[in-house]
Amino acid sequence: MDAAQSSTPEQVFDWLDAEADKRSGAGLAHRLIPRPAAAKELDLAGEDYLGLAHDKRVAGAAAAAALRWGAGSTGSRLVTGSTELHAELEHELARFCGAQAALVFSSEFTANLGAVTTLSGAEAAIIADKHIHPSLIDGCRLSRAEVAAMNHNDVPAIKNALATRRKPRALVVTDSVFSVDGDSAPLEELSQVCREHSTALLVDDAHGFGVLGDGGRGAVHAAGLAGQPDVVTLIPLSKALGAQGGAVVGPRRVIKHVVDNARSFMFDTGLAPASAATALAALGVLKSEPELPEKVVLNASRIAEQLRDNKFQVSEPQAGVLSVRAPSAEEAVAWAACCAEQGVRVGCFRPPAVPDGVSRLRLTARASLTESDVDSAVKVISGSAPRGATS
Amino acid sequence: MDAAQSSTPEQVFDWLDAEADKRSGAGLAHRLIPRPAAAKELDLAGEDYLGLAHDKRVAGAAAAAALRWGAGSTGSRLVTGSTELHAELEHELARFCGAQAALVFSSEFTANLGAVTTLSGAEAAIIADKHIHPSLIDGCRLSRAEVAAMNHNDVPAIKNALATRRKPRALVVTDSVFSVDGDSAPLEELSQVCREHSTALLVDDAHGFGVLGDGGRGAVHAAGLAGQPDVVTLIPLSKALGAQGGAVVGPRRVIKHVVDNARSFMFDTGLAPASAATALAALGVLKSEPELPEKVVLNASRIAEQLRDNKFQVSEPQAGVLSVRAPSAEEAVAWAACCAEQGVRVGCFRPPAVPDGVSRLRLTARASLTESDVDSAVKVISGSAPRGATS
Repeated sequence: MDAAQSSTPEQVFDWLDAEADKRSGAGLAHRLIPRPAAAKELDLAGEDYLGLAHDKRVAGAAAAAALRWGAGSTGSRLVTGSTELHAELEHELARFCGAQAALVFSSEFTANLGAVTTLSGAEAAIIADKHIHPSLIDGCRLSRAEVAAMNHNDVPAIKNALATRRKPRALVVTDSVFSVDGDSAPLEELSQVCREHSTALLVDDAHGFGVLGDGGRGAVHAAGLAGQPDVVTLIPLSKALGAQGGAVVGPRRVIKHVVDNARSFMFDTGLAPASAATALAALGVLKSEPELPEKVVLNASRIAEQLRDNKFQVSEPQAGVLSVRAPSAEEAVAWAACCAEQGVRVGCFRPPAVPDGVSRLRLTARASLTESDVDSAVKVISGSAPRGATS
Repeated sequence: MDAAQSSTPEQVFDWLDAEADKRSGAGLAHRLIPRPAAAKELDLAGEDYLGLAHDKRVAGAAAAAALRWGAGSTGSRLVTGSTELHAELEHELARFCGAQAALVFSSEFTANLGAVTTLSGAEAAIIADKHIHPSLIDGCRLSRAEVAAMNHNDVPAIKNALATRRKPRALVVTDSVFSVDGDSAPLEELSQVCREHSTALLVDDAHGFGVLGDGGRGAVHAAGLAGQPDVVTLIPLSKALGAQGGAVVGPRRVIKHVVDNARSFMFDTGLAPASAATALAALGVLKSEPELPEKVVLNASRIAEQLRDNKFQVSEPQAGVLSVRAPSAEEAVAWAACCAEQGVRVGCFRPPAVPDGVSRLRLTARASLTESDVDSAVKVISGSAPRGATS
């Protein structure tokens, strides 16, 4: 330790610069690009699928709640952070999803950690798809369970892992719609395999809820699994509902268990009342306009189809997410920047945000996109593409 | 696996009931108690130390932001979730704390995970106080670092661990004010020891920020460590600032590194604009009313003193938090319930929320408490106490 011990306080974080240089060299550095209140760009990057974050009914409910309930929740949900507004949101979420109960966390990330850790544990095996969201992966790592990461959507491998597991309990973990390519998991088959092996199924419906299923009730509902006693669903408040936070939805006893055990629930301040009110108002809009969700799917398909016609390597979107392969991380960054200059904002996903190491433009569709929006976005994306992006 | 495999879907979660029974038997079950918009109780449980969550200037800023910037941030901070409002808040937070830069997360829990994991790693040793906040402990567990949990506030042991460590890098992790008893860490000594061993110091100022230091600049500022090149501070937006979220504050290169590496930053939706605006407006109030913070400390001392006079086992509060020992978990629950019935809301901390397994009433002071509030709260707490709570 002599060398290290002789360094000055100014040198303690020198190792960060070396890491930053490595990232820059590989095209993996990020720059936060703050957007103005009224974005001028056509947004093909955000996850506010139904446009509710800027809907006057929804934003108005957020504003009213801040004034009535306070700007913050003032404490952990176990202490002063549970308001009647949170309880109402949980009741309505559960009802909408056809489940017994729901529990709202202050972020999606913490909801996902909380569900994975409390529904597994040292006595459990977790069998997870390799492409699950990073928050679920971190939940697996915190869980003390025996974790097996399976090839993407490989149901026979999951079945085999369940049959040969050494742990008495098991939890199968999957996204409903995968967050990078927008492809979907075979939820019905997975549920069948889980049942053959007395196993619970945990589904992150981040990109399915509000987009798929009857009136936007999500992929779990569409698969006929709503309200099942062995299925637990993770619902985002921050995507189709235009708010912030996440929820665990499932059997009453699961919710009770999560309240008592999830460290990311107990040891975090409750969701701000404005965000709870946002989600509640957005649920109301969704109920009154059940035709909104399918527009998202239609628009995503249109974008994918037109880009595929232009010879790009495009994923097959099952909801509102799709991706286009880029030759390299650097070229993905340049491509996205070029689109932005021409008024189209797209996502640029690079390692560690991609499960296979391949950098991509990651696009999202919104219910409000017109045919002309889609046409001009495709034109800009196609015209900005680096060599080697088309096959 | 035969026994497990023969169970029905309804039985998959039967193990949760067995666990619930165990918790109930030990007095460790929780019940969420939703509060109304206008709470009638005297609040000695919340963490809104300065009362800013309900301040009209602050709640008004939240409401205006929801309408102007949208109810949600619509995406990851790396994609569409960074607004100019987030950038302004980060700038003002850094300036207020005397640091180069700040980064805002959507919850304190995720901020804490992000800082611990990205500033350590497999090549590092983490030397952490045993009483640090559970979110920091989970960060340690996710970090892949070699983690040593030291006895509470044992600086010589930390010094020894640093001197004998096998890893090239190290990170010392502590709370400034510990969240259960409200005692404080010897930050100056810790910084000295860190410097002798070329080690970074990470301080969670959850209960010091807005309460201690010049105008509420926090415990790190009070210890003369603001702006130091080897110190990183975690700042809550959800306590003294009355909002939601958390921030990492420190050297510019640290913030850049966290942006590029923290999974709980990259893979979560950005903080809702209303919460960012809340924190920004609260900072403004704090700057214009620099005398607010010391009232919190004074009130906590008063409560502690009077309860000690009544022979309770009370911690020595250094900021706005204190605790009173209860004979058992069950009696702590009954004690808190009895206080609530008489119009005083107190926290009830039981395992796993206490580092030593001892259940307590956990009290917080607010700037706005009058002498008569303190007197009547102490009267209710004393009058509701179980046998064996006094020495």
